[in-house]
Amino acid sequence: MSNTRGNAIVGQSGGPTCVINQSLVGVVEEFQKHEHIGRIFGMHHGVAGLVKEDLIDLTDIDQATLDAVAGTPSSALGSSRDKPDHAYCERIFEICRKHDIRYYFYIGGNDSADAARIVNEVARDAGYELRVFHIPKTIDNDLRVNDHTPGFGTAAKWVASAFMGDDLDNRSLPGVKINVIMGRNAGFLTAASVLARVREDCGPHLIYVPEVDFDESAFVASVARSITQFGRCVIAVSEGIHRTGEKPLANLLAEDAPVDSHGNKLLIGAALGTYLQKLIGDGVEGKLRVRSDTFGYLQRCFPGVVSAVDAREAREVGRIAARYAFTGDRDGSVVILRSNDDPYQSVYDLTDLSDVARDTKHLDLKYVTEGGDNIDDSFKKYVAPLAGELPKVGFLR
Amino acid sequence: MSNTRGNAIVGQSGGPTCVINQSLVGVVEEFQKHEHIGRIFGMHHGVAGLVKEDLIDLTDIDQATLDAVAGTPSSALGSSRDKPDHAYCERIFEICRKHDIRYYFYIGGNDSADAARIVNEVARDAGYELRVFHIPKTIDNDLRVNDHTPGFGTAAKWVASAFMGDDLDNRSLPGVKINVIMGRNAGFLTAASVLARVREDCGPHLIYVPEVDFDESAFVASVARSITQFGRCVIAVSEGIHRTGEKPLANLLAEDAPVDSHGNKLLIGAALGTYLQKLIGDGVEGKLRVRSDTFGYLQRCFPGVVSAVDAREAREVGRIAARYAFTGDRDGSVVILRSNDDPYQSVYDLTDLSDVARDTKHLDLKYVTEGGDNIDDSFKKYVAPLAGELPKVGFLR
Repeated sequence: MSNTRGNAIVGQSGGPTCVINQSLVGVVEEFQKHEHIGRIFGMHHGVAGLVKEDLIDLTDIDQATLDAVAGTPSSALGSSRDKPDHAYCERIFEICRKHDIRYYFYIGGNDSADAARIVNEVARDAGYELRVFHIPKTIDNDLRVNDHTPGFGTAAKWVASAFMGDDLDNRSLPGVKINVIMGRNAGFLTAASVLARVREDCGPHLIYVPEVDFDESAFVASVARSITQFGRCVIAVSEGIHRTGEKPLANLLAEDAPVDSHGNKLLIGAALGTYLQKLIGDGVEGKLRVRSDTFGYLQRCFPGVVSAVDAREAREVGRIAARYAFTGDRDGSVVILRSNDDPYQSVYDLTDLSDVARDTKHLDLKYVTEGGDNIDDSFKKYVAPLAGELPKVGFLR
Repeated sequence: MSNTRGNAIVGQSGGPTCVINQSLVGVVEEFQKHEHIGRIFGMHHGVAGLVKEDLIDLTDIDQATLDAVAGTPSSALGSSRDKPDHAYCERIFEICRKHDIRYYFYIGGNDSADAARIVNEVARDAGYELRVFHIPKTIDNDLRVNDHTPGFGTAAKWVASAFMGDDLDNRSLPGVKINVIMGRNAGFLTAASVLARVREDCGPHLIYVPEVDFDESAFVASVARSITQFGRCVIAVSEGIHRTGEKPLANLLAEDAPVDSHGNKLLIGAALGTYLQKLIGDGVEGKLRVRSDTFGYLQRCFPGVVSAVDAREAREVGRIAARYAFTGDRDGSVVILRSNDDPYQSVYDLTDLSDVARDTKHLDLKYVTEGGDNIDDSFKKYVAPLAGELPKVGFLR
C-alpha cells in the first residue's frame, strides 16, 4: 500500500476520441477516494500546458460534472501534439517537482507512453519518487500488448454505421463510392467496416489497409470485378495505403499540394479519394458515377454514437491506473486483454511503459483475403463485441 | 369516398434521406387497409424503373418487414435522378394505363412534384382516371408551401451533432476548421449548425449560406476576427456559396477539375473546402492549423441518428397521401405546416402539385446576421423542434 503524500496530475494527448474523457474521469473519481494524498491537477493541453504550468485543479469537481464530461467526446482538458524528447521530459519533471506532483497519469497512444517512460527515468535518476502511469487511448487500435484500445470500439461503431448507411445510399443510386478512413499505419479501423456487411451483397465490397502494399492496376481490376458482380462498388480505404516500399500515397500526393503565401503546404485529406476516383474513371470501362468521401475528424469526435463496452472500458482503465497508483506500488501502462470470446470478456493488467512505447502493432494479415483487396468476415468476431450494438436495417426483399 | 378500383404505384426519387422509407411504408400500410382496390406496386429505381416496367409488388408485405424498412435510411425501392420531360411523362402514363394503375404516389423534391404534375395532366388529357400524389422529401428543406420537409430534421440533427463533436475536437487542438455542408441552393441545413452552439464560445463561429453572396476578403477578415476572439475558428459552409452574380464556387472549381480518360470531369466535393483553406493560409497572419472536411453523403444516410419528430412526420405524409387517395377525391402534394411554436405542433394539408413543383424556397434573410457571416441564434427556435434531441455534452468549467 502506497502512502506517499503529494499531488497528482493527469493529462490527455494526441487526437481526441469519443471516450477519452471517460479515462480522465476514471482517474479523478478514484483519486477522490484518496483525497488525503493531496490535490489532483489537469494539464491544460497536455505536456504543452504542463511545462507552462497551465494547470486545472480537478480535486473538488462534483460527480454530476464528472459524469457529464465522461459522456462528452474529445479531450476536456485540451490536448497537445507535442512529442517530448529527453530535454522536454526534464522540464516536465522539474514542473512536477515544483508542484510536489507524485502521481503522473498520461492518457494517449504509443508516443505518450514513450514520453511517460522518459519522465519516469528522469525522476528515478533524480531520486524523486514519482509514480508514472500511461493510460491507453487511440482509435487506431495499434498499441502493443493490448487486445484493443479505448476509443477504437466507438470509432469502429461509427465507421461501421457510416458504411451501413452509405451502402444503402449506393444501393439506391448505384455507382462506385470510395470512403477514406483514418489510420495511417494500422488498418484496424478501416477493417471495422466489415461490420456493415449484414447481407452478402452489402458493401464494403473492397477494403484496403496499409498492411497490404497497394497496386493501382490490381485496384482497378478489383473495382471492375465488383461492378460486374454487384452492379456497383463501395470501397473502404485506409488513409495510409502505399505502394511497395514507398511512402503512403497520401504523403506523395501532399508533395504536389498547393502552398500558401507563408510557404505552408495545404494538407488536403481528400486528395487520396480524388486520386482513386481518377484511377477508376481512367481504368474501368463504361459510364460510371464515381464519388469519394473522406470521413475526417467525425470518426474521432461524433457525439451520441458510443460503444457501451468501449465507454465502460475507457472509464475502467482510468480507475485502474489510479488504483495502482494510490494503493499499490507499481508504475506502468494499463492494458486491456481479452479473457473470453463468446461471451466477450476483458481483463486489465499493468505492463512496463516500454512495452507499449514507440513501436505499434498492425492488423494480423490472417484477416486479409487472398488478393489483398478485402477483409475476411472472420474479423467480425474480433471487432463486433468492441463496436457493440449497430443500427438495425431492413430490406424489402 | 373514392370507389375506383385498380392498382396503385409508389416511387422514390432523388437523393435519399434517413426517413424516406417512412413515407413509403406510410403509403403501403394505408393501402393495406383498402386492399379491395387492387395491388400496390413499387417502382424499382423510380420513374427510370417504371418506364422499364421494373416493378416490385408490395401488396402483401408484412408489418414487421414494413417497420424494419421504415427505420432504415435511403430509398428501399431504389431511386433515380431522371427528370422526366413531357415525352417521358407520356411513357410513364402509358405504363400506368397498361398495368391499370389508378393511384400514383411519388416521394421526392420539387422536380418530382413537377413530374407528378405532368403525369397528372397527361392522364387528364387522355380522360384516364389517375389520382396523382406528391409526397415531400428533401434534406434541403426547400419545398414551397411547406414549413419544413421530411428528411430535413434528421439531417439537421446529424449536422448539429457533427458540429458539436467537431467543435469539441477543435477546442482540444485549436485551429481553423471548415466543414462543407450539403445544400446547393438553400442554406437551411448549413444554418442548422447553429444548434451546436450550446455555449457562447462554441462553434460554428462563422456560417455561410448560399442566400448571401460570398466575398473572399470579407471571409478572411471574419476568420481573423474569430481567431482573435476565440483563439480558433470553426466554420460551416454551404456547398452552394457563390460570389455576387456568379455560379457556385464549387461549380467554378469543378471547371478546373481533372478529366478522366473517357472525358468525364472528376466531381470533387472537397475542392471547395480546399479552396477556402488556401484563402485562409494566404490571407490570415500567423502559423495556423487549417483543415477542412466535406461531410458528404453521410448527411443523408447515416443510420441510428434520427429525429423522432422527423420520422413520425415522414410516416404521416405517406399515410395522409394514401388516405386522400383511397378515401377522398383530390390530387396534390402533401404539405407540412407548423400550427404552434411552443410546444411545437404541425398539421398536414394537400396543395396543388404546381404549388411545390419547379421553384424552391430559400432561407429567410432575417436569420442572417449583419455582415452575412453568421446565422442568428433566433434560427434555433425554427430548427430545434425539427432536429429533436441532441447529444448532451459537459464541460469541466
